[in-house]
Amino acid sequence: MKQFMNDRETLVTEAIDGLLRTAGGRLARLDGYPHIKVVVRTDWDRGKVALVSGGGSGHEPSHAGFVGQGMLTAAVCGDVFASPSVDAVLAGILAVTGKAGCLLIVKNYTGDRLNFGLAAERARAFGLKVAMVIVDDDVALPDLPQARGVAGTLFVHKIAGALAEAGADLDTIAAAAQGVIKGAISIGMSLDTCTVPGSPKEDRIGQGKAELGLGIHGEAGVEQVDFSGARAAIQMVAARLSPHMGKGDHVALLNNLGSTTPLEMSLLAEELARSPIAGQIKALIGPAPLMTSLDMHGFSLSLLPLDEDRARLLAAPVAPHAWPGCLPLGPVAVRPLPDGLAPIQPVPSAHPARRALIARCCAALIAVEKDLNALDAKSGDGDTGSTLAGAARALQAALDRLPLADPTQLYRAIGMELAQTMGGSSGVLLAIFFAAAGDASAGGKDWIGALSAGLDRVMQVGGAAPGHRTMIDALAPALAALPQGVGAAAAAARAGADSTAAMTRARAGRATYLSADKLKGFNDPGAEGVARLFEDLAKA
Amino acid sequence: MKQFMNDRETLVTEAIDGLLRTAGGRLARLDGYPHIKVVVRTDWDRGKVALVSGGGSGHEPSHAGFVGQGMLTAAVCGDVFASPSVDAVLAGILAVTGKAGCLLIVKNYTGDRLNFGLAAERARAFGLKVAMVIVDDDVALPDLPQARGVAGTLFVHKIAGALAEAGADLDTIAAAAQGVIKGAISIGMSLDTCTVPGSPKEDRIGQGKAELGLGIHGEAGVEQVDFSGARAAIQMVAARLSPHMGKGDHVALLNNLGSTTPLEMSLLAEELARSPIAGQIKALIGPAPLMTSLDMHGFSLSLLPLDEDRARLLAAPVAPHAWPGCLPLGPVAVRPLPDGLAPIQPVPSAHPARRALIARCCAALIAVEKDLNALDAKSGDGDTGSTLAGAARALQAALDRLPLADPTQLYRAIGMELAQTMGGSSGVLLAIFFAAAGDASAGGKDWIGALSAGLDRVMQVGGAAPGHRTMIDALAPALAALPQGVGAAAAAARAGADSTAAMTRARAGRATYLSADKLKGFNDPGAEGVARLFEDLAKA
Repeated sequence: MKQFMNDRETLVTEAIDGLLRTAGGRLARLDGYPHIKVVVRTDWDRGKVALVSGGGSGHEPSHAGFVGQGMLTAAVCGDVFASPSVDAVLAGILAVTGKAGCLLIVKNYTGDRLNFGLAAERARAFGLKVAMVIVDDDVALPDLPQARGVAGTLFVHKIAGALAEAGADLDTIAAAAQGVIKGAISIGMSLDTCTVPGSPKEDRIGQGKAELGLGIHGEAGVEQVDFSGARAAIQMVAARLSPHMGKGDHVALLNNLGSTTPLEMSLLAEELARSPIAGQIKALIGPAPLMTSLDMHGFSLSLLPLDEDRARLLAAPVAPHAWPGCLPLGPVAVRPLPDGLAPIQPVPSAHPARRALIARCCAALIAVEKDLNALDAKSGDGDTGSTLAGAARALQAALDRLPLADPTQLYRAIGMELAQTMGGSSGVLLAIFFAAAGDASAGGKDWIGALSAGLDRVMQVGGAAPGHRTMIDALAPALAALPQGVGAAAAAARAGADSTAAMTRARAGRATYLSADKLKGFNDPGAEGVARLFEDLAKA
Repeated sequence: MKQFMNDRETLVTEAIDGLLRTAGGRLARLDGYPHIKVVVRTDWDRGKVALVSGGGSGHEPSHAGFVGQGMLTAAVCGDVFASPSVDAVLAGILAVTGKAGCLLIVKNYTGDRLNFGLAAERARAFGLKVAMVIVDDDVALPDLPQARGVAGTLFVHKIAGALAEAGADLDTIAAAAQGVIKGAISIGMSLDTCTVPGSPKEDRIGQGKAELGLGIHGEAGVEQVDFSGARAAIQMVAARLSPHMGKGDHVALLNNLGSTTPLEMSLLAEELARSPIAGQIKALIGPAPLMTSLDMHGFSLSLLPLDEDRARLLAAPVAPHAWPGCLPLGPVAVRPLPDGLAPIQPVPSAHPARRALIARCCAALIAVEKDLNALDAKSGDGDTGSTLAGAARALQAALDRLPLADPTQLYRAIGMELAQTMGGSSGVLLAIFFAAAGDASAGGKDWIGALSAGLDRVMQVGGAAPGHRTMIDALAPALAALPQGVGAAAAAARAGADSTAAMTRARAGRATYLSADKLKGFNDPGAEGVARLFEDLAKA
C-alpha cells in the first residue's frame, strides 16, 4: 500500500466521513453507504434552486469540498474515477430539490452523462423540475466531438452557485451555466502520472518530458513534449488556449492537479502573469487544488471570458474553504529596503589600556592555535584553533578602526568585525556575545555585567548551557569568578575546561553527533581555548 | 528537471513574486532580491506589536503564506531548506517594527537561531524592542536536548497573531507564545522522502515501510516502521504523542507534508476522530498543508492543551487564506435516504393491441440477433444483436407486469425494466428514451410526440446527433416520417441506416475509436436494427 488508507473499498467513504467531521457542522451525508455517497448542506431549506454535481472521486476538493452556501447543494461521489450510480444521483436530487428545481452540473464523461441523465428522468417522474448541463472545457483533443470536462467545471459551480444563492430561477441559472460552458476552455500539463490506489503506477512520462493535454483520470496526454521549465510550460499551455480565446478580458483558473508543491504553483502563477496572454487576464482563481487527479504532479489552466456580471458572481463569498476566491492578477508590490542594513561605522578612538588588553587576548589565542587544532582533531575536524586564531588575527588588523574609548560602541564594533570575518556558527555566536554585551553596557552594566549579559544571550540563542560540553563550560565559571580577580577566573576556567573531559555526551554543537568513546578523556577544544586565554591574562 | 521551475537559483524569488501577484494586494516584498527575501503586509502601520517569522523555503504556505492581518507581519524567506541571512532578518525587523516592538518566532534549527538571534541584536542596537521565541515541538527524538520546530509553530503564529491584532503588548505576547511552545507537541510520518529541487531524490523508504518522526527537511526519521494502513499510522503517531499529553482538552493540527492527497488527508482526519486520543481533541486545524516539506508524501500531527483563551484566539478570523480555520472535530452527520429510490411498481393492466405491438417488436429484434451481431463484428465486438435481443426477451418476460392501459405509466415501466435488465450505456440510453417519452406523455403528447421527446433527451444526454453513425441515424428519420404511416417510417429508417455505411468517422459511442477503413461500407448495427424493426412493423 502506497497511500494513507485502510482498504480500497472503504477509502472514499472514510474520507467523506473525515471531511464531514472537519467541516464545522456545515455538511451531512445520506445514509446510503457504501453505494450511495451523497454529501449535502445542513443549512438547506429547499427554498432556492438546488445545484447537484459529482462524478468519480479522486478529484478532491471536487466535489464534496465545494458543497456549501454559494456553491453546490449536494455532491454525488462515485468510487475513485468511477461514476456514481443512477440511484446515488437520484438520492442526491431527491434529498435537496424543492419547488424551485435543481440543476445538475455534469462533466462530459459517458458514465456521468448517462447516470445523471437517467436519474434526472426518474426525478422528473416525481414531478420535480430538473435541468442538466454538461461541461466540456478541455481543448486538448480538438478533433474529438466531445471534449472532456475538467477544472473549468469550477467556473460553472461558482457562477451558478452565486446565482442560486441570490434567488435566480432554474431557467436563468441553467442559461448562465450554459453560457459559461460555451466560453470555458482548459488544458493540463503534467510531469508524471497519478497513482491509483491499489494499482501499480504507470511510468509513462520519461525524464525531461511532460505530457500536454492529459485528462484528470490519468488518461494519456494528447502528446509528450520536451520539458524545459516552468516558463516554457506556461507558454505552451497558453499557446494551446490562445486560438480558442476571444478578444477582451478573461478570468483564469490555475489548478493544482495533485502533488505540485505550493512553491511551484506560485511560480507558475508568476509565469502566467508574464505570459503572452497575461494582458487579457484580469482575475485569477488559485493557484489551488480545485479539480485534482489524485497525486498527479501537474497543473491545468482554464480561461473564461469575463464581464461585470461574471466578475461579481465569481467574487461573491462562499462557505466552502476550498474555494480560494477570485482576485485580481496584480503587480508585484516592492518596497524599498529599510535604512540601517549597512552597519554603522564606528568612529575610531584611542584607549591604550583596552588596546593592550585586546592585543594580548589576540596574541594568546593565536599562540594556542596548533594545540587546540590537535585537541579538536581527536573528536572533530581539527579547526577550532584556526577558527579562534582567525578571529584574533581579524581583530588585530581592526585595532586602528575600533572605538576603543567607548565601551558600548567597542563591544558592538567587535561583534560586527567578528560577524563579518568569521564563518560558521561560532562567528555568529561570538558576534551575538559582543552585541549583547554592547546592549548591556548601553544599559549601564559594568564590563563584567556586560560580558555576563552576552553569555546569557548566547546561551538563549545557541541553546547551550553549562554541562553541554561547549566553551560555555569554561566561560560561565570564569565570568562568575571574575569579580574575585583574573587569577580566580583563570582557575575557574581551567576547572571548567577540565570538567568537559568527563562529559561523554555532548548536548550542543557538532559534537552532539559523536559517540562517548570519541569524547571521553579529552577536553572540549572551545572550553580549553577559553581556559588558556584566561590563564594567559592571569600571567600578565 | 523534475519540477515546474526555471532555475534553482530563481525558484524562491519567482515563487514569492507569484504569491504577491495572487494575494489581492495584501502583500509586498522588500527590494532586496536575491539575497533579501522578505514579505510584508501592505496594510501595516507599525501601531501594534509586529510578528516576524521565517526560515528556509520549501515549507509553503509557511511562512509567507501566513503574512496578513491576524497572523504574521513579515516573513523572512531563505532559499530552499536554508536559513535566511542576518541581513535579511534584520531587514524584515526594521521594515515592520514600531514602538510596540517585535516578536521573532523561530524554529529550533541552529542556522535560524543564530541568524535571527544576531539580527535581533543588531535591531536592538537601533533601540528597537525585540523579543525572540524558539519553537521546539517535535517529540520524535526524545533524547536530543534540542527538539526541532515543526508544524506546531503554527499554533504560535496564530495565537500570538490574534493577541497582537487585539493590541496586546510585547511582553504579554511573548509570554503567551512561550506558553504555547511549552505545551505544543508534534510528530510526523511519511511514506516517501521529499524531492529537493536540483538534487536526486533519496530512495530511503522501502515498499511496505513508513518513516516515523522524520523532520521537515527530509532528515531521516527516528525509525522505519511497518506501514499497514491509515488507522495504524494514526494510532502509532498518537501513541508517540500520548505520553507528552496532559489531561484535559487539546486542539490538534493535522498537517499535509506535501503531496498527500486530500482524499488521504480526510481519511486521516477520520482516523484521528476514531483514535484513542480522540476524546481529548475538542478542535482541529486542518487537514491542510501548513508546514510542508516540498513534495513529501506524509503528514504530521500536532497537539496543544486547549483553554478558553486559546480557543478564542485560534478561532479569530485572519486574512491569509492558507489558514484553514480551527473548527470542532465533530460527529458524522447522517441523514435518512429520501423516499422514492425504490422504483414505483406499476399496477398491471390490459390493452391487447399494445401488448401485441410490443410482442411483435420484441420478436422482430430477437429475429435479427445473429445478423446484427455479424454486422457489429466487422467494426466492434459483435454484440449489438445480443444486446437488443436481450432487452427484447426481458420485455417479453415482463408483459404480464406492464401497465398496458396507461401510456404514460407504460413508457416509464418499459424504461425501468430496461434500466434494470440491460447492462452498459445502451441500456441506460434506452431507459432514458422511454422515461422521457413517459414524461412527454404525461405532459399531453401523443405517442409520436412522446417518442420524439424521448429521442431529443437521448441526444442531449448521450451527446449524439444525426450523422454521428449511431442508431439515431435511423430512428430520427423514422420518427419524423411516422405521421405519414409505418410504411413511410420504415422507408425513412432504411434510408437512414444505409446512409451510415458512408459515415467513416464515428462521432459518438464506441466506434469513435475506429479508423475509417474499418467502418466504410458497413451500416451501423444499431441503425440497421432500427430499420429492421420498422420494416417488420410495416409488413404487419
